[in-house]
Amino acid sequence: MSDPTLLILPGDGIGPEVMAEVRKVIEWTGANGGPRFDVQEDLAGGCAYDAHGTPLTDGTMARALAADAVLLGAVGGPRYDALDFSLKPERALLRLRKEMDLFANLRPAQCFDALKDFSSLKPELVSGLDMMIVRELTSGVYFGEPRGVTGEGDGRVGINTHRYAAPEIARVARAAFDLARRRQGRVCSMEKSNVMEAGILWREVVEEVHRDGYEDVELSHMLADAGGMQIVRAPKQFDVILTDNLFGDMLSDVAAMLTGSLGMLPSASLGAPRENDRPRALYEPVHGSAPDIAGQGKANPIACILSFAMALRYSFDAGEAATRIERAVEAVLADGVRTGDLMQAEGGRPATTAQMGDAIVGKL
Amino acid sequence: MSDPTLLILPGDGIGPEVMAEVRKVIEWTGANGGPRFDVQEDLAGGCAYDAHGTPLTDGTMARALAADAVLLGAVGGPRYDALDFSLKPERALLRLRKEMDLFANLRPAQCFDALKDFSSLKPELVSGLDMMIVRELTSGVYFGEPRGVTGEGDGRVGINTHRYAAPEIARVARAAFDLARRRQGRVCSMEKSNVMEAGILWREVVEEVHRDGYEDVELSHMLADAGGMQIVRAPKQFDVILTDNLFGDMLSDVAAMLTGSLGMLPSASLGAPRENDRPRALYEPVHGSAPDIAGQGKANPIACILSFAMALRYSFDAGEAATRIERAVEAVLADGVRTGDLMQAEGGRPATTAQMGDAIVGKL
Ligand SMILES: CC(C)[C@H](C(=O)O)[C@@H](O)C(=O)O
Ligand SMILES: CC(C)[C@H](C(=O)O)[C@@H](O)C(=O)O
Repeated sequence: MSDPTLLILPGDGIGPEVMAEVRKVIEWTGANGGPRFDVQEDLAGGCAYDAHGTPLTDGTMARALAADAVLLGAVGGPRYDALDFSLKPERALLRLRKEMDLFANLRPAQCFDALKDFSSLKPELVSGLDMMIVRELTSGVYFGEPRGVTGEGDGRVGINTHRYAAPEIARVARAAFDLARRRQGRVCSMEKSNVMEAGILWREVVEEVHRDGYEDVELSHMLADAGGMQIVRAPKQFDVILTDNLFGDMLSDVAAMLTGSLGMLPSASLGAPRENDRPRALYEPVHGSAPDIAGQGKANPIACILSFAMALRYSFDAGEAATRIERAVEAVLADGVRTGDLMQAEGGRPATTAQMGDAIVGKL
Repeated sequence: MSDPTLLILPGDGIGPEVMAEVRKVIEWTGANGGPRFDVQEDLAGGCAYDAHGTPLTDGTMARALAADAVLLGAVGGPRYDALDFSLKPERALLRLRKEMDLFANLRPAQCFDALKDFSSLKPELVSGLDMMIVRELTSGVYFGEPRGVTGEGDGRVGINTHRYAAPEIARVARAAFDLARRRQGRVCSMEKSNVMEAGILWREVVEEVHRDGYEDVELSHMLADAGGMQIVRAPKQFDVILTDNLFGDMLSDVAAMLTGSLGMLPSASLGAPRENDRPRALYEPVHGSAPDIAGQGKANPIACILSFAMALRYSFDAGEAATRIERAVEAVLADGVRTGDLMQAEGGRPATTAQMGDAIVGKL
């Protein structure tokens, strides 16, 4: 059997430099009993626009669909701000999500013990925090039609459509319940069913899925605004949060920032299983392309390295290799190795992007 | 000239008991050189449904439209959860907002110095915090058509429409710029223009309004997800935040919770000036109806008392009387008087709802 393909899309800003460190970890894993990959690389985002006049070519899209997993760095930057909506780097990401049908976005909000003082929250509120936001990623107001701006002057109207079909809600709900079973067994679903009919349907379908084979999982509901409040008040009350595309965008960013570990958080976007049982999947750090520090060796490669670990776990059934990488990251942090983003507080040994990558490989 | 009318809608849960304390402050103000009011009272929310089978009768709606200002306690409660969407207590609020055309919702997120340890954030991040969220309140996904759930079984689809017309954006932008001029002169506008065309129009119109007579105010833009992150990371960077109905709902709740002063925060919802120069206006606490503690004398009346102070300032040009009430509240807090919601941390003298009201009148 040939090695599974891993398509790497370093993207823009700090993407390429963090991806260079991930490559060291990929090599180490392959050489030490973990899965070996046929690693391919391509352009996505602003760099693809620069080269081809589009943020994602059809060729790259086809390779992503064919790949066993995709690993993305980050896309975007101020250089592309003036581009038309349809050409912006973000469209690459949205096209990948949509055409790969990656409906379940898993965003862990986890607080690394060595970093608990970095949170803007009091340390006791975040220490040991480990929650997972499951965000629907292929529907809702991001993709609904009709959409656009029409008219002129005072007659201009901007429209987007928030739309969910019952099966779209059901499949991401199942993903959340499945995940909760492997964790603390609790799901809290968030919507605005007090003002949006689409939220009423959301709640209804989540309850149906729950009754239909997931009654061992504890299900609760919260309005999304109250949910935002509770995430900042007492984040440790949550295990799995299930929510839609737009609320998930906001809530997962708030939760990520709270951990104090923003530069450390990975994410997985998963589709349905294919014939070979592997889901279509895209892994990427939660942080953005950070154009202000790009190319200076200041970026923290950990989030992208942990995204590769998530790929090992969710796409390649290599949970042990994943855990090994996660332990190495913790060990390096415990040793006080710190990239610039982690140097605000006390002590620590300053490290460049490459030094951090090497330290992690060293621990492996 | 007859006294201006103030329509009081105590509502559900703790609404009536906090409103009883506000009445003491209204009386004190009238008897001590502040404006005197023709105070009227009516039902809104679940209590109106219980009495009339609708959360807001046409008669109450007419009185609200005619009143010089409306002061609302809170609406809602689990007893009404099973009601049809169109009968839920929240519909009272949404109808008032829409028919009174209250397009500018002002939500201060302020940290009271005596309470800075109550925040889940580190005290130094919130101490002295005083930001204002200006939320559009009569349009967007809350009101857009088409909306509803159609179909059966797997064919069910839930739809809501996020829709903004240019003049709707322009008028709330002007409200934000006007307000910023009386504060630190900075507005940060938040949308998701990277994924929503309605967000592109939002940004465009805000920039036009800015160029057209508000260039003395500093304007910046942030994507709403990044904005949520920044609010929890470093809230003091903001002066006025301008945003739409749904983002405003989420962001203002997150910001309110961060202050540690949730039971203390008032809000104002303002329409356009009428012939008498007074805007249509509704004032209400940010907190909800808290049915779990209703009727037990545990509720904190401060948010509702400060909402009355906001009414004095924005509807009745009585800024001095407003400031006097605000000072009295601060003094009482500094004395350590604490309702139950403020007793989590150290010390303080426990007070019932009525004792807190009396203490504030005492300071006046
Ligand atoms: C870059 C942007 C299109 C994207 C989103 O809004 O989904 C990002 O914020 C995210 O959360 O992955
Ligand atoms: C009660 C509810 C309809 C309301 C809203 O969503 O606007 C509330 O959350 C608010 O923020 O005033």
